[in-house]
Amino acid sequence: MARIGIIGSEGRMGQAIASAVAEQGEVLAGGIDKGGDATALSAKCDVLIDFSSPGALEANLDAAVASGTPILVGTTGLEERHQFLLDAAAEKVAVLQTGNTSLGVTLLAHLVRQAASSLGEEWDIEIVETHHRHKVDAPSGTALLLGEAAARGRGVSLDDVSERGRDGMTGERRDGAIGFASLRGGSVAGDHSVSFLSDNERLVLSHMAENRAIFARGALKGAMWLIGRQPGRYAMPQVLGL
Amino acid sequence: MARIGIIGSEGRMGQAIASAVAEQGEVLAGGIDKGGDATALSAKCDVLIDFSSPGALEANLDAAVASGTPILVGTTGLEERHQFLLDAAAEKVAVLQTGNTSLGVTLLAHLVRQAASSLGEEWDIEIVETHHRHKVDAPSGTALLLGEAAARGRGVSLDDVSERGRDGMTGERRDGAIGFASLRGGSVAGDHSVSFLSDNERLVLSHMAENRAIFARGALKGAMWLIGRQPGRYAMPQVLGL
Amino acid sequence: MARIGIIGSEGRMGQAIASAVAEQGEVLAGGIDKGGDATALSAKCDVLIDFSSPGALEANLDAAVASGTPILVGTTGLEERHQFLLDAAAEKVAVLQTGNTSLGVTLLAHLVRQAASSLGEEWDIEIVETHHRHKVDAPSGTALLLGEAAARGRGVSLDDVSERGRDGMTGERRDGAIGFASLRGGSVAGDHSVSFLSDNERLVLSHMAENRAIFARGALKGAMWLIGRQPGRYAMPQVLGL
Amino acid sequence: MARIGIIGSEGRMGQAIASAVAEQGEVLAGGIDKGGDATALSAKCDVLIDFSSPGALEANLDAAVASGTPILVGTTGLEERHQFLLDAAAEKVAVLQTGNTSLGVTLLAHLVRQAASSLGEEWDIEIVETHHRHKVDAPSGTALLLGEAAARGRGVSLDDVSERGRDGMTGERRDGAIGFASLRGGSVAGDHSVSFLSDNERLVLSHMAENRAIFARGALKGAMWLIGRQPGRYAMPQVLGL
Repeated sequence: MARIGIIGSEGRMGQAIASAVAEQGEVLAGGIDKGGDATALSAKCDVLIDFSSPGALEANLDAAVASGTPILVGTTGLEERHQFLLDAAAEKVAVLQTGNTSLGVTLLAHLVRQAASSLGEEWDIEIVETHHRHKVDAPSGTALLLGEAAARGRGVSLDDVSERGRDGMTGERRDGAIGFASLRGGSVAGDHSVSFLSDNERLVLSHMAENRAIFARGALKGAMWLIGRQPGRYAMPQVLGL
Repeated sequence: MARIGIIGSEGRMGQAIASAVAEQGEVLAGGIDKGGDATALSAKCDVLIDFSSPGALEANLDAAVASGTPILVGTTGLEERHQFLLDAAAEKVAVLQTGNTSLGVTLLAHLVRQAASSLGEEWDIEIVETHHRHKVDAPSGTALLLGEAAARGRGVSLDDVSERGRDGMTGERRDGAIGFASLRGGSVAGDHSVSFLSDNERLVLSHMAENRAIFARGALKGAMWLIGRQPGRYAMPQVLGL
Repeated sequence: MARIGIIGSEGRMGQAIASAVAEQGEVLAGGIDKGGDATALSAKCDVLIDFSSPGALEANLDAAVASGTPILVGTTGLEERHQFLLDAAAEKVAVLQTGNTSLGVTLLAHLVRQAASSLGEEWDIEIVETHHRHKVDAPSGTALLLGEAAARGRGVSLDDVSERGRDGMTGERRDGAIGFASLRGGSVAGDHSVSFLSDNERLVLSHMAENRAIFARGALKGAMWLIGRQPGRYAMPQVLGL
Repeated sequence: MARIGIIGSEGRMGQAIASAVAEQGEVLAGGIDKGGDATALSAKCDVLIDFSSPGALEANLDAAVASGTPILVGTTGLEERHQFLLDAAAEKVAVLQTGNTSLGVTLLAHLVRQAASSLGEEWDIEIVETHHRHKVDAPSGTALLLGEAAARGRGVSLDDVSERGRDGMTGERRDGAIGFASLRGGSVAGDHSVSFLSDNERLVLSHMAENRAIFARGALKGAMWLIGRQPGRYAMPQVLGL
């Protein structure tokens, strides 16, 4: 049994991770929130999971380094300077930072990149996602992540080929475009589908989330995988052996 | 065996209808195109199928009336004054005018209207369609036809509730909105899907066309159904007994 | 605000209904379980919801009749003799008995019946469902309910046309058959899809449940609809105005 | 422009390949059928495509070796002894033998294998396919090919884990099973879908064929890729750079 420490333990993700820890039979060594003592927590954990805020990142990484504890960072809103902090910490401990902890989405992005790299440009790429009615932006961050994976597979820049929000007289589809469409409604936790469409055939790679517990489970799996690793920067695909 | 006359016989739809006539074992009584003699054709047919041009409509209806022959009109681009011509002809012969002759789409529109009328506004309606890469407009005419069916089921005007081309900071979905999204790629003849999304459940009504032969088959079925009918205006749903 | 009484209140469905009552702002007048006093409960309710056991049905109906309270019965495992009890009670109070309280599934069955009745036998009907890995039977009861709806739409007996468990050298599909297939895996609460497949086109009518809360919500909606109704037997489609 | 020779040129696939050759602007150097002279054909081609019969394989390979012409073999019904013939020929010329020439299916099988190898056994694998009403066996050969890919990814034997034709009291899904289900209807050329289902999430990898032209196009692409290769045995995944 591993001892897990949660930073940001009262947030939505923090609570979900605590549930996942209990469900998987691991030990919740403790949790802290704004103003909590990361160093004390770090000292009694085998791994830290940080879903707090960008402003707390530096102190959290210092705590991890002080006790030699690996750390998974799922905090969103990080900027370039946070990446330098992560790189610096990764010289001393194992660090995994990610914007999406779902194992299914991680694998999907990997497969999309591979498909895009194997198939020629005569295969048109379209990404469609569905989310609940309260989502305020489109396309979803995960749809963009999948678009990036497709663009990288093709060796192009997503910004150069995106086709978004089709409406009215659009003209024919541009060669090499990557299209995005967004559906909104009900309580859908998140469906994503990447289609490769050629003459007379289609390849469709999809992921459906029933609820948000999968992100907590993936974070825990990633954290468990970090225990005992050499110092360095790691990424979710490695957790899946990709 | 029924004798079928095709007006606009060399057009894409005209040719497809001729194939359908042969395939179903009916008789192709003849076909005319621009400058052809509709009256002579009409006199030797049990039913006329017109996929020509708005400009030819008046002469075609006159020919049908002269010989008392029912007529199915699938010509696109009709305006309000053409509707008056159709109404006038319908006092003398059976007339069926439609913008979509697919039986599957006709039934789908009927089911969508019914679902929209049965389900409360807490069921969000989203319409997504996929067409080949050469299509120049979005959403497709059929998607709009399905949106109209949904709006009519709810007793609202589609113009008031359409949500199209979502991209960027859209804000939350508006209550009662009907959303549209369009995918483009490959050689897809036409996929349409209408989703009703509520808390924790979804109802999805879809139609997929493998190719355009279905429109010719539906037109022929509609024409066969017209033979022997009383004078009057008819519509595709009636062909299906709806 | 309506006063709701739950019989079988500690069961899985009873608890889910209590949550739905709270969520919708109605009043939970009380709940009883094995050995509880249905008559006392009935007297203080506007409507009863019974998800208990077949053995308790008679006493529950007696209680409803005694106080003139309408009752929705969702208990499973009922036999023919229970139907007589329900008929008798329905002479005095409004009674709605159903094996599936989901509004989405209720509507889907209605649409399937209509599609089957409108489309000719050249449209092959196939039903596929997906449920979690712990389900022990196939096809699901809901898949069979949908098959019954399709068979009724066609005026045939489902037993005569079912094609189940295809494997090996099956020979060509029989004309008029209704096929069933079952997928099992993960934690899927229940996906059902009815396809009508003809030459070159497909109509697909589907329902997806994210979790079981929809059955509680549907039961509550049905119960609310019963309040103030004349004595008689009612069914879920009526709740949707079908 | 490459010179293509077709063995079995009057068969359904042979004709489709001739169309693909014309469509892609390559040169049809010639075609032979039963009794034709493979050696003469081989001498004037850059590559041979063989969709004839197992009985003709030896002579066809001899012809290819005699002129040093690479050969793609899509003939079905090969047995183990034919593999020895292919191996022997591959010492002298480039040889690609395959049971499925669709590029989309080839890539799908590769992705399925990878997904199965990356995801743990808590991800249940289910394969569902839809084919036209005239298909006489189930599951399809392609579904089994995908099942093999999944089994190989997991390091198990497909025979040991297949779960086919579910019907009646099946009991819970077995851990590690790979399930198969088959839908039949209409004119569907071939849809295949491989689902990986875990708690609260699903990954679905699908392929849809609109018609059979894709197999001819894939065969031609494979043949073009063979031109100029060193002697040896090759496989479709290599054509895609996998």
